[in-house]
Amino acid sequence: MEIKIMKNILDRNQNKANEVRSLLAANKVVMVNIISSPGAGKTTLLEHTLEELSSKFRTGVIEGDITTDRDARRLQRFNIPIVVINTEGGCHLDSHSISKVLDSFSLEELDVIFVENVGNLICPSQFDLGETFKLAVVSTAEGDDKPGKYPMLFREARAVLLNKIDLIPYTNFNSASFISDLRNINATVPLFEISCTRGDGMKEWFGWISDQIVI
Amino acid sequence: MEIKIMKNILDRNQNKANEVRSLLAANKVVMVNIISSPGAGKTTLLEHTLEELSSKFRTGVIEGDITTDRDARRLQRFNIPIVVINTEGGCHLDSHSISKVLDSFSLEELDVIFVENVGNLICPSQFDLGETFKLAVVSTAEGDDKPGKYPMLFREARAVLLNKIDLIPYTNFNSASFISDLRNINATVPLFEISCTRGDGMKEWFGWISDQIVI
Repeated sequence: MEIKIMKNILDRNQNKANEVRSLLAANKVVMVNIISSPGAGKTTLLEHTLEELSSKFRTGVIEGDITTDRDARRLQRFNIPIVVINTEGGCHLDSHSISKVLDSFSLEELDVIFVENVGNLICPSQFDLGETFKLAVVSTAEGDDKPGKYPMLFREARAVLLNKIDLIPYTNFNSASFISDLRNINATVPLFEISCTRGDGMKEWFGWISDQIVI
Repeated sequence: MEIKIMKNILDRNQNKANEVRSLLAANKVVMVNIISSPGAGKTTLLEHTLEELSSKFRTGVIEGDITTDRDARRLQRFNIPIVVINTEGGCHLDSHSISKVLDSFSLEELDVIFVENVGNLICPSQFDLGETFKLAVVSTAEGDDKPGKYPMLFREARAVLLNKIDLIPYTNFNSASFISDLRNINATVPLFEISCTRGDGMKEWFGWISDQIVI
């Protein structure tokens, strides 16, 4: 019974996601759905990425948050279109909420929209937003066992960013274990080992993400 | 429509939670529902807590995980009853799954059951398991803005554990901001600032949790 209800919700989400995907394709807009646990560093990653990309691409942002506009405020200085979706307790964004807010963007004037999903390693990976691809962000402080324990996202992501590698010396994080765990789940996904605060790996990340945005 | 479905699911969960709560009370067993993001340190906290409490109390554990039994394996050395619930993709435990596994415990031989919920700061706070109380664990590496952004759990918890305070010097975590954010959401909840790896604050935590277990 509950499974059937969930299937209906997911079917309706998928139909709307397909619409969103067609609309984005018609306007040649790439949409990146960024997913992580709370506090893995999505907003800081976005700040650095917008700094790098804003001169090359026309960017927009959708900020998913349960209740505040704190993350959006951190991005205001970029003077780009930003829309906040407050889920009011909801644990993920869905394609219907994305579809609604797309009306407030001038899609023909954008190359890429970054969607910062609600901080949650589980539910957001089950809801297609119509995005071009998903991005998994995970922090070293979360431990090296996360891909095996939360496999859905790591299977679906087009790239994995291992953030906060500057903290490794102060934790029991084992890079070899993490990589082996990830490769069991997804043998080929590109992995970027980065530190947003110290700058490690950011050049490679900027290069890769730029290549995904066709203009 | 979706709201109505959600209400039905929550109503059925609440009814079963009430049954679980009665059963635990009849057997004088305290159940602690531990909730956090992935990688905030629930299992490590549990390891240290079991080490301290096992000589004083008869303990049991329910390990909620999406797909592995990794956390349960880490606790095997305590030689106490441990049951794993794999949610198979599900983002939280519910009272029905707890009710089912309670049959495999001899409740009359236990003082306390620790439930390690699925790593998720959102959904688990919405599902009453019939627990005696919820515990919120949050890591300094997640940032100081989490209570305001994920208020449900911080409102409901009987205690908040701020873990990994040994990492503060290597992050931009601001303790005053965290405390102010927490107090806006919950003015009175006890806060323990701890480091499971270094030992800070553990004595106070052990004292408090022992006081919650009446034998």
